Amino acid sequence: MTWSRVLLLAVPLAMLAAALGAGPVVVLALSALALIPLAALIGEATEELASRTGPLVGGLLNATLGNAAELIIALAGIRAGLLDLVKASITGSILGNLLLVLGLSLLVGGWRHGIQRFSRQRAAVMATMTILSLIAMGIPSLFSHTIAVHHPEAVETMSLGVAGLMLALYGLSVLYALRAHEPFAVHTPTHTRWSLYQALGVLVAATIGVVGMSELLVHALEPALHALGLTEFFVGIILIPLVGNVAEHLVAVQMAAENQMDLSLEIAVGSSLQIALLVAPILVFASLALGQPMDLVFHPLELVAMMMAGAIAAFIALDGETNWLEGTQLLAVWGMLGIAFFFV
Amino acid sequence: MTWSRVLLLAVPLAMLAAALGAGPVVVLALSALALIPLAALIGEATEELASRTGPLVGGLLNATLGNAAELIIALAGIRAGLLDLVKASITGSILGNLLLVLGLSLLVGGWRHGIQRFSRQRAAVMATMTILSLIAMGIPSLFSHTIAVHHPEAVETMSLGVAGLMLALYGLSVLYALRAHEPFAVHTPTHTRWSLYQALGVLVAATIGVVGMSELLVHALEPALHALGLTEFFVGIILIPLVGNVAEHLVAVQMAAENQMDLSLEIAVGSSLQIALLVAPILVFASLALGQPMDLVFHPLELVAMMMAGAIAAFIALDGETNWLEGTQLLAVWGMLGIAFFFV
Amino acid sequence: MTWSRVLLLAVPLAMLAAALGAGPVVVLALSALALIPLAALIGEATEELASRTGPLVGGLLNATLGNAAELIIALAGIRAGLLDLVKASITGSILGNLLLVLGLSLLVGGWRHGIQRFSRQRAAVMATMTILSLIAMGIPSLFSHTIAVHHPEAVETMSLGVAGLMLALYGLSVLYALRAHEPFAVHTPTHTRWSLYQALGVLVAATIGVVGMSELLVHALEPALHALGLTEFFVGIILIPLVGNVAEHLVAVQMAAENQMDLSLEIAVGSSLQIALLVAPILVFASLALGQPMDLVFHPLELVAMMMAGAIAAFIALDGETNWLEGTQLLAVWGMLGIAFFFV
Repeated sequence: MTWSRVLLLAVPLAMLAAALGAGPVVVLALSALALIPLAALIGEATEELASRTGPLVGGLLNATLGNAAELIIALAGIRAGLLDLVKASITGSILGNLLLVLGLSLLVGGWRHGIQRFSRQRAAVMATMTILSLIAMGIPSLFSHTIAVHHPEAVETMSLGVAGLMLALYGLSVLYALRAHEPFAVHTPTHTRWSLYQALGVLVAATIGVVGMSELLVHALEPALHALGLTEFFVGIILIPLVGNVAEHLVAVQMAAENQMDLSLEIAVGSSLQIALLVAPILVFASLALGQPMDLVFHPLELVAMMMAGAIAAFIALDGETNWLEGTQLLAVWGMLGIAFFFV
Repeated sequence: MTWSRVLLLAVPLAMLAAALGAGPVVVLALSALALIPLAALIGEATEELASRTGPLVGGLLNATLGNAAELIIALAGIRAGLLDLVKASITGSILGNLLLVLGLSLLVGGWRHGIQRFSRQRAAVMATMTILSLIAMGIPSLFSHTIAVHHPEAVETMSLGVAGLMLALYGLSVLYALRAHEPFAVHTPTHTRWSLYQALGVLVAATIGVVGMSELLVHALEPALHALGLTEFFVGIILIPLVGNVAEHLVAVQMAAENQMDLSLEIAVGSSLQIALLVAPILVFASLALGQPMDLVFHPLELVAMMMAGAIAAFIALDGETNWLEGTQLLAVWGMLGIAFFFV
Repeated sequence: MTWSRVLLLAVPLAMLAAALGAGPVVVLALSALALIPLAALIGEATEELASRTGPLVGGLLNATLGNAAELIIALAGIRAGLLDLVKASITGSILGNLLLVLGLSLLVGGWRHGIQRFSRQRAAVMATMTILSLIAMGIPSLFSHTIAVHHPEAVETMSLGVAGLMLALYGLSVLYALRAHEPFAVHTPTHTRWSLYQALGVLVAATIGVVGMSELLVHALEPALHALGLTEFFVGIILIPLVGNVAEHLVAVQMAAENQMDLSLEIAVGSSLQIALLVAPILVFASLALGQPMDLVFHPLELVAMMMAGAIAAFIALDGETNWLEGTQLLAVWGMLGIAFFFV
């Protein structure tokens, strides 16, 4: 993603704008732009480090640092009390991976290569795991919307329980991958070549950059939303995932363009799985530690959208072949949901 | 469907009944009966014309004229302000194709031939597209039921947006079929043999007949419903699809009886796709032009029923084989939904 | 399940406790424990009898007597007016089979044998039938929650209609199995060897025992729930299925441990099918005969949980292979639902 390096120019511009007291919309736009290349750099540095280690350490590095940018932005949001934003960004990451990234992959790949085939086996296992994870993640919401009127205090407890369970399932999935001698996090092929010290340096610098830009973004957010007439919710669903996570996973689109659909699907579906089983529970526990307890109760529309996206991905995975028309339909569903969330 | 010709006798009888001022129930029943053979004749004439053209023109003819009877009835309904009836007829067509037609096909075919197999490939692609289309079509309803209390004005806008998107997806599916050298509308084999002028004459005469009978039906509808204690909703779900569309697609049952399950599934699933991506958006735009703007907000029970029917069809398509027991279950679900809609 | 014989000791202990006027919690616990081996004995005696008959009589014996324990407990509940408990026990049996039994099977089998494969064909047919059955069973609830405010009297009628329909579908599935020369109830291999008279004697004695213990359990239930702070609902979802039905079906886990996944899936999915198509409608009609009419309206959370469990089982069946990680996820979903139902 060398093209994204140009966007690094937004880092000093965002700092300058904040220092000069520019309008919050300008600061928001610049810090969001700046986060895209910084998140990509963390990803690349992690890949470089992971490629020098064994599968266990490399997988753990990828899983934790690969989501670092998103986690840092979300933690800044939690500290600022923007819990709806953070929860929406979890939904948005999952929708972004299963609809936007997968849709673009199918469209680009299918347009170039016609009908694309892939091994149903691994795809089906990952899809089943994704659906099970989304169902587990949806239980506190179901509980809250149907029952909790009589037990509001139980929602937070149940969210913590589900979060603990999801971390346990994540741990089990690592154990499973080790027993089966499968990589449990996808190593995307890296094109750059850095020395160990260069990689570590890039990692540290980019992380510092993400921390700084997240703070700018979070503080500019509320006044900017007022000025633009947008909701916390919409920004969480659409904007945060785009800057924090999805940009990196556009690698999936590149893989599809090279007709490597197995790898492409694995990135899109595997990332959603990591968001549900690793990122979401970490945020629940971190929110407790930060004194801003966040539950796992999602808006009904978020819940339905996530279940739909999971079911769609599962049908496509069980199908065993894709075409560009399915890609346009995934993009259309993503676009329509974006418009619906605009009004929430 | 030569047997249906007998029903043409209902055309003069309906006109006579209306002229003599017979009760609305009699006029409703006769005009409904008359529409069955007229719709079938439009379908046959279209097939005849389509068989003389290339795949593009033939496909377009089939897609537009093949749904002509349904569109004409729906437009008469919109002009008379019966928007619930028209929306219910969209739901009813989809349920009729995916549950009634498919159920009868599986029952008749499976009873004769035992377990029937078909190519999972094309069936799975069509099923995935159907589910994606139903999800897209369901978004304004989801939006309306969960959010729109604060933005009622947004529902109509969103319905128009979704309708435009669906037409665009339909256009893309035509483009896809042309690129893949696949027929994008199913040509069912025709048994009659007409000259070009005979076919055109039948087409014009049957269309005029459908227009006239639709007017009789729509005007007799409200007093007849009062007399019978039925709702607009029930008639839209069950009666209109039976006379306007589903009867024609009983060809699917015939194909199943001849053990051509690929063709049978393609008709049942493909027709639902055409209703969702072509008929529904045309009606939304036509309703705007007729000054009776119709949104795409369906009753929760309609929504759930359509999603269920789509999921069932997808599971059957991914399964790769069918038996008559599944057929009876599809019919049972259709029957139970019919009873439920009776009370809406 | 010879190990369960030890639990027969709970039979005299429960009677003693009830006679001595012990606390209701003690009576409840002892009678519940006593039901486990008694239900298992009815199952074993039925298998013995079924193995001496042809497939039709044997299948009918298995289907009716195999669910005898559950039916007897449920009838005692209906007589005592505990309708929520009985309906919850239907949900709980289905969830127990599709999540707990299947989850344990996948975990134990997959841990021992790695990835386990099975014939997708029969599994997919059964999964499709399960989903169709659950949808049919869910229609009165959907109806009740979305429409019935205006027609409360229609809910009971509709429940009776659906129950009749389900019995008809069950009859058709028997006919289907006979025509296809397939067993319509699974004969699990029996390890014990009894004479005909021994088998009949065990059947009669165990049935008497189940009747007696059910009465003790039902009468101790309400005071015990007060003492423990549990709901009728929770006991119905978790406890009743465990003592009445699921324990027997742990045979499915044993089959999975022996790498016979086809048989294991057939037991877990087939049992759910029998609960939906045979046990539930029998209870509806029996409740009417007992003057305590029970409808088929389930709590929204029950409905969603059953649909989820059905969809999960279908995805696993269509997938064609399983691993222990999927097993842990099924168990996690079952556990989380258990916690949610605790608060209903």
